[in-house]
Amino acid sequence: MKGAGGPRLQELIDLCRERGIPVRFEPRPQLDRAAGSAAHQGVVAFGAAERYATLEQTAAGSGLHVVLDGVEDPQNLGAIVRTAHAAGAAAVVIPERRAAGLTDTVGRAAAGALAYLPVVRVTNINRALEELKERGYWIYGLDERGEQSYDRVDYASPAAFVLGGEGRGLHQNVARHCDALVSIPMASGPTGGIASLNVSVAAGVVLFEWRRRQAAR
Amino acid sequence: MKGAGGPRLQELIDLCRERGIPVRFEPRPQLDRAAGSAAHQGVVAFGAAERYATLEQTAAGSGLHVVLDGVEDPQNLGAIVRTAHAAGAAAVVIPERRAAGLTDTVGRAAAGALAYLPVVRVTNINRALEELKERGYWIYGLDERGEQSYDRVDYASPAAFVLGGEGRGLHQNVARHCDALVSIPMASGPTGGIASLNVSVAAGVVLFEWRRRQAAR
Repeated sequence: MKGAGGPRLQELIDLCRERGIPVRFEPRPQLDRAAGSAAHQGVVAFGAAERYATLEQTAAGSGLHVVLDGVEDPQNLGAIVRTAHAAGAAAVVIPERRAAGLTDTVGRAAAGALAYLPVVRVTNINRALEELKERGYWIYGLDERGEQSYDRVDYASPAAFVLGGEGRGLHQNVARHCDALVSIPMASGPTGGIASLNVSVAAGVVLFEWRRRQAAR
Repeated sequence: MKGAGGPRLQELIDLCRERGIPVRFEPRPQLDRAAGSAAHQGVVAFGAAERYATLEQTAAGSGLHVVLDGVEDPQNLGAIVRTAHAAGAAAVVIPERRAAGLTDTVGRAAAGALAYLPVVRVTNINRALEELKERGYWIYGLDERGEQSYDRVDYASPAAFVLGGEGRGLHQNVARHCDALVSIPMASGPTGGIASLNVSVAAGVVLFEWRRRQAAR
């Protein structure tokens, strides 16, 4: 609020600036309107409908992370969140740009899993992979160029799987940040033809193989 | 065409009646319009955009069959056709009623797989399962009531997998036609909550486990 002050308000402003949250100063009537009431303490915060977690929070427990390098279809993002939760992952990591965010469509496709599985949104996927590595994570990239078949890898722990967006593999830079590239070999099939998987189905195949191997330990 | 005749036309009419294809007799101007030209030989056939195969054709080779007990979402049907093809299946079987058929949306979600993998549309799923059994198939139903985990089953050959529609298991009658019911155990997960999979993701998990086991033989 314009003209308000004091050390507690200054602390809030400093915290917002530190975290890159925009701060605007407005006259009291504006704040009353935004808060829907005059019973506020001079500050109104606007939160997103869905809250994102931070890697700091999610990676502390060393649980499985699923990192998405540009999945654009909200149905796919939702199905991947649902699948990751069902496979026992600790978090899904998505980039801020050129990718689906947490919309209502994603929520519906996730079928309730968003209430349980934290989603981390990062500015830079490569930086997030570096941070995971610093925390002891092994990074497995799913890519058709991968020489190892997904069911032949001796997965180390803690692990993070990186999946590319629809219709393309991982970005070169992202692939370089992986400890190993793994692929899902497709059947040539009795009927022939080119075969590939939807990214959410590929996530299911790899994550449940990982889970199966964990259970067999 | 009204008034046309001759043994070749009669043969066509007989074949249509034999296969249950409706035959209508119309005056020549109607036929010219339907054919988009007068250069026809007195007969115009209307084909569906997508052609269905028959169990007789697809089951002869003893390849894997994926039977869908009422998948209603065309995106899911398309993704399952794509997944079945990638896993090396020989055919997908769908019911005529209360289920998605082969629309353009399905074709797009199948990402080209429809050109290679035959889809059989049957009047009655239970009857189709009986026919597969008569041909020596082992029927595995995916259902959360299944006591065997999908990765612990010693799959016999030839095999057919039956998947239920979105948000529910197999119909009671369909479940009774299965030789075994198998389930995909979900993680309770570090974050808790109810977990389940989208039907196309579940298809991927089970079909690629089947494929992995085939390859290991």
